[in-house]
Amino acid sequence: MKFSARTVRTSRYPVLIGEGALEHLQKELKGFWKMKSQILILTDANTRRFCLPELLNRLPLLEEATVLSVDAGEEKKSLLIAEYLWKELGSHHADRASLLINLGGGMVTDLGGFVASAYHRGISTIHLPTTLIGQIDAAIGGKTGVNINSLKNQVGTFYSPHGVYVWPGFLITLPMAQVRSGLAEVAKAALIQDEQFWRWLTRKPLLQILEIPFTEPFWKEVLLRSIRIKMDIVKQDPFERNRRKLLNFGHTIGHAIESFSLRRETLVLHGDAVAAGMLCEGFLSLHKTALDPLQLEEMIRWILPGFGKFPLLEENGAAYLDLMQHDKKNRQQEIRFTLLSGIGKGKINQACTPGQIHEALSAYDTL
Amino acid sequence: MKFSARTVRTSRYPVLIGEGALEHLQKELKGFWKMKSQILILTDANTRRFCLPELLNRLPLLEEATVLSVDAGEEKKSLLIAEYLWKELGSHHADRASLLINLGGGMVTDLGGFVASAYHRGISTIHLPTTLIGQIDAAIGGKTGVNINSLKNQVGTFYSPHGVYVWPGFLITLPMAQVRSGLAEVAKAALIQDEQFWRWLTRKPLLQILEIPFTEPFWKEVLLRSIRIKMDIVKQDPFERNRRKLLNFGHTIGHAIESFSLRRETLVLHGDAVAAGMLCEGFLSLHKTALDPLQLEEMIRWILPGFGKFPLLEENGAAYLDLMQHDKKNRQQEIRFTLLSGIGKGKINQACTPGQIHEALSAYDTL
Repeated sequence: MKFSARTVRTSRYPVLIGEGALEHLQKELKGFWKMKSQILILTDANTRRFCLPELLNRLPLLEEATVLSVDAGEEKKSLLIAEYLWKELGSHHADRASLLINLGGGMVTDLGGFVASAYHRGISTIHLPTTLIGQIDAAIGGKTGVNINSLKNQVGTFYSPHGVYVWPGFLITLPMAQVRSGLAEVAKAALIQDEQFWRWLTRKPLLQILEIPFTEPFWKEVLLRSIRIKMDIVKQDPFERNRRKLLNFGHTIGHAIESFSLRRETLVLHGDAVAAGMLCEGFLSLHKTALDPLQLEEMIRWILPGFGKFPLLEENGAAYLDLMQHDKKNRQQEIRFTLLSGIGKGKINQACTPGQIHEALSAYDTL
Repeated sequence: MKFSARTVRTSRYPVLIGEGALEHLQKELKGFWKMKSQILILTDANTRRFCLPELLNRLPLLEEATVLSVDAGEEKKSLLIAEYLWKELGSHHADRASLLINLGGGMVTDLGGFVASAYHRGISTIHLPTTLIGQIDAAIGGKTGVNINSLKNQVGTFYSPHGVYVWPGFLITLPMAQVRSGLAEVAKAALIQDEQFWRWLTRKPLLQILEIPFTEPFWKEVLLRSIRIKMDIVKQDPFERNRRKLLNFGHTIGHAIESFSLRRETLVLHGDAVAAGMLCEGFLSLHKTALDPLQLEEMIRWILPGFGKFPLLEENGAAYLDLMQHDKKNRQQEIRFTLLSGIGKGKINQACTPGQIHEALSAYDTL
């Protein structure tokens, strides 16, 4: 006897970008208060200190919300901390109608999104990204996750937030290194899909961009263009079966650099690791996807002076390869990359051998 | 600036019931081998010993699968064990194309379903329920979960399996207490939706039913009717916004009894707790939803001699109330029940006061 069962989950959620984002959020929250739902805010130590006061100042109705806080740092995106938060939600009697607002960078939105996705099989969650990388990348697209055994996002879910509110005002709280890290993801978005955006972005060296005040129209353009690219890709392939893998350019090697740094407790910023990853994967692209060497040179010229260099092979080439084999994009231990056939043209599912990878790391090391 | 994002997840999966279920599974697995996907089997100590040999005997192509095993018992449905399994999947290089087969009762399918739903943001999973309660209830409907702080399924996901294969042959491995526990869920399915099924089921006393060999058509009928009721309800409301709450009849008080037993490490079987819960909630139904006292008497006559009685209030009435307040069906600490307005007629969202609940527990205690 055969029956057929069916599960359908459809959700459409708003992504609001710009000065007015918090006003839109306020309207939305009034609906939650009207339903007598409990609202909780997740922060890390930094956003509790630097962003929460500003948020409460602008949205006084959040004064009544319960604030949960965790230490800052990617290494806190762990199952242990998720368990702590599930217990906290329980002891605050959070129920299925409760709302968890994640106020922070990618660590907070990944962690809070995961916690919300599995508490009582899923409660509402809103992302309020406070870092550049969070605003253009981490908080967009419905991925959540925590690290296990120092492997990035080994455990997580696809979970749609109730909404994402991108308020550029939070960016002034960032140290310059965080802004630089975010610009690596901006560059990635351009490199995989939008050559014209790349040309526009790289008219100025990265160090000059870091001097531009956040009130300048330049940043609004950066946010809008980057978010549009990410959403466009995610909409076509929410569960990363094919096209979404484009977003992984620079990340296979970048994640290995990050995981290695988690292991050694000398933390590397995500964007800095991705910048190095993009150059290494640029070298792979020369042979695998016929990237024009002149275009690779152009990438190196803009990326290298801005992000600096990691000593890769001389430190531990074998450890990187081992870490890459744990990457979620792999099939059957074969290592697959997203590479470039040109600036603005990403190519997914490029299988590379350990020898080819070693060669690319080595080419990067001799830059 | 406002964008709209969308996530859609649609899946339809087969539920195969009967002697031929394993042959269908075999066909399905050939597809996985063809894709060179890794297959892993999750068992507990009991199913490893009593069910796995039979499965390998009938499906020799599973000899190559990796077997992961955990201790038996509801208290093993924990985050700690989930983490152990995520690490095991990692060390076996399981990737997104891997398949996890859950061979066991509700503990194994809940736990394995949760682990699969969050490993690399979701891998394929197949349920092979081996207990009566698993075959008619736990493995059907896409709920996964683990317990936290001795609270049942505090953390979990809605996650569609790739398929569910209900092979009655596994039932002969069960101790009689497990079959009895499953019959509580059979009775519940009848009570909430199908009076005729209730009449058919209760023609014989429960103790006589336990003597019927599993090869008799009686059991096929039990499986088909119970599974049909569950699937019918789940299809209409996969995420338990309304109609699916029907399935919680007997469970608000039943879960409290179970959670209390987890705390004290004197384990009570799920169905036995639900049987007591159905009677207590039957008493609540007299006042709240005008259940006919004669129908309640009829329920008591069939349920009580079969499932026995727990001393509730005399043990710790306050602890039960406290545990019910953690139930996932609640809103704002108000305790909501699914009650009966008649046999075969469940009514969701019935808020009861602590006083009413105390009275119902007390009425049960004096039976």
